[in-house]
Amino acid sequence: MKVGGIPYRAIFTEGESADVQVIDQTLLPHRFRIRRLASTADAAHAISAMVVRGAPLIGATAAYGVALAMRADPSDQSLRVAVGRLMATRPTAVNLRWALENAEAALRPLPPPRRMRAAYGFAHALCEDDVRINRSIGDIGLDLFREIHRSSEGGARRPGRPLNVLTHCNAGWLATVDWGTATAPMYRAHDEGLDIHVWVRETRPRLQGAGLTAWELGQHGVPHTLVSDSASGHLLSRGKVDVVIVGTDRTAASGDVANKVGTYPLALAARDNGIPFYVAVPSPSIDWTTADGTDIPIEERAADEVTLVRGVDEAGVERTVRIAPEGTRAANYAFDVTPRMLVTGLVTERGVCAADGRALRRMFGREMG
Amino acid sequence: MKVGGIPYRAIFTEGESADVQVIDQTLLPHRFRIRRLASTADAAHAISAMVVRGAPLIGATAAYGVALAMRADPSDQSLRVAVGRLMATRPTAVNLRWALENAEAALRPLPPPRRMRAAYGFAHALCEDDVRINRSIGDIGLDLFREIHRSSEGGARRPGRPLNVLTHCNAGWLATVDWGTATAPMYRAHDEGLDIHVWVRETRPRLQGAGLTAWELGQHGVPHTLVSDSASGHLLSRGKVDVVIVGTDRTAASGDVANKVGTYPLALAARDNGIPFYVAVPSPSIDWTTADGTDIPIEERAADEVTLVRGVDEAGVERTVRIAPEGTRAANYAFDVTPRMLVTGLVTERGVCAADGRALRRMFGREMG
Repeated sequence: MKVGGIPYRAIFTEGESADVQVIDQTLLPHRFRIRRLASTADAAHAISAMVVRGAPLIGATAAYGVALAMRADPSDQSLRVAVGRLMATRPTAVNLRWALENAEAALRPLPPPRRMRAAYGFAHALCEDDVRINRSIGDIGLDLFREIHRSSEGGARRPGRPLNVLTHCNAGWLATVDWGTATAPMYRAHDEGLDIHVWVRETRPRLQGAGLTAWELGQHGVPHTLVSDSASGHLLSRGKVDVVIVGTDRTAASGDVANKVGTYPLALAARDNGIPFYVAVPSPSIDWTTADGTDIPIEERAADEVTLVRGVDEAGVERTVRIAPEGTRAANYAFDVTPRMLVTGLVTERGVCAADGRALRRMFGREMG
Repeated sequence: MKVGGIPYRAIFTEGESADVQVIDQTLLPHRFRIRRLASTADAAHAISAMVVRGAPLIGATAAYGVALAMRADPSDQSLRVAVGRLMATRPTAVNLRWALENAEAALRPLPPPRRMRAAYGFAHALCEDDVRINRSIGDIGLDLFREIHRSSEGGARRPGRPLNVLTHCNAGWLATVDWGTATAPMYRAHDEGLDIHVWVRETRPRLQGAGLTAWELGQHGVPHTLVSDSASGHLLSRGKVDVVIVGTDRTAASGDVANKVGTYPLALAARDNGIPFYVAVPSPSIDWTTADGTDIPIEERAADEVTLVRGVDEAGVERTVRIAPEGTRAANYAFDVTPRMLVTGLVTERGVCAADGRALRRMFGREMG
């Protein structure tokens, strides 16, 4: 999508075996800077330090991390070490495992001299797939938005008001290669002239909503309003939201959804008020090997993400401030699991699907396990 | 309660018609400073700028605001102007109206020369009542905590683990004159040697959890862990919480509870996991004239409370940083309403009461309306 009028992707290369370039998301929204990844170590660090984040983009970066390893040394050992190192960066996003297992399976049978080119090819293809998948989620989600907007304009609701969409965290183009997952229908809707307004939850502790989603939507011109995470209950209960749509870091085979912490209480509040709650699920985020949401590992991150907040001061200088008394103990669970019964539907690249294992398997043509 | 080992109240006077002194809560947890209120304008500003906050403390400050008016000019007009000015400071806390209506009713029949002394007397008595009420809520809540701890030690839960209490915002002694409402049972429990641990929600946007509750509990030595507001769903679903207790800014006659925004989704998550959800309700927070929660006015505050975060940098310098792109629109609803059916019980100074209008009226001996 566009940044200052110029189209960008969240990850890209210039030339066939070039360094990998990513937008440094730890600096947004205050600075827009491209960072160059020249080695597997760079790629692994970019993932673990959240220079890149978002399940699909983590997968893409990992695939390029393997390509960078093959560029440096295409041996079996190099492949094994690179995959192991990249796999250890983040535990929850299943796209990481998906990308690495598929890259390894594609490369291992090849003679080493052919691996670099194949690894770059794999990563490029993964990125093109991601764009195609998200664009498709955007089209399918747009139809859904149109339907919801039509029905919410009727009945008790005020005609002519925008479709009010609420989202959590950043399942935007910055979380993918382009388009985003949950945001793809928003961009499509806005481009098609559907009157849309997005409630953006700030998403503590790392503020991906305030820093990334608000920035993305602003750059593209989509009307939006930032709220604290706690505000959703009030918004939902007072008729200010027509539909909730979020992304996922891993969706279990059962349809249970792991996503950024705070998604589960949001889904409860949507259900309590009869507001549809959708999850945008590109197929690489489905973990067919995890039966149930309770089996998904939940990453615990550093406590100082809770006690320290980064921003810019009045003079535009970036600063980090402590918000709690010195020495305050904090806990930082990064994700939670939303039980499938709270999910109205999964918006996949193949269509909208009920959040249950059978419907999901049927949609993706998978044999019963 | 104690600050650095010295007992304090959140509001106090030295001498019969003296200036009023309060802890400046806009500076906590980074600076502990007493601020002197010498006029009704000072008192009104202290309430609207949240130098003091919390429903009971707002009521106490308003009562002293009337006393300061009577000290300056005990005329009818001065009384009327002071009450009007103080009433306009904050819309949601019912204690404000309660204190002002009762002060006015007590003072108006008196000849002006007697009003100053009576007004101070009224404010002093209101403060003593607040302390007595909260102490009583503490004793009653302590019994409740003991009972929950006994039952949570049995069954599937690990013996010997502390009672894990979760709270939102600051219904602590800083929100009252002393003890606090939701915190009174925590302080009583800790003082009585019950093994207790408190999950403190940071409470965006103003961070009263991170800045005030964590500070209070830390000063008193109560073990606690700070979490972002979004973490509660995960904590509740993974058995890390035994009981939730929060305060209230106004409880309707029906038992519906208005409290800091985010309370309603928290109550939903508690119910979804079978965890008891209690509200500490001193009787002056009950609005007998508001039939239902939907009738409670919800304050909207400045958007920059969402986009700006205050803290201290590494050098200990207080700074305010912007967390969103410049010019991002934000909305800031300060409270939400938790429907009575989500509330396990109301902990009042007279005992624990079901959250319904009939039980509430019976407990307080009020005729059916």
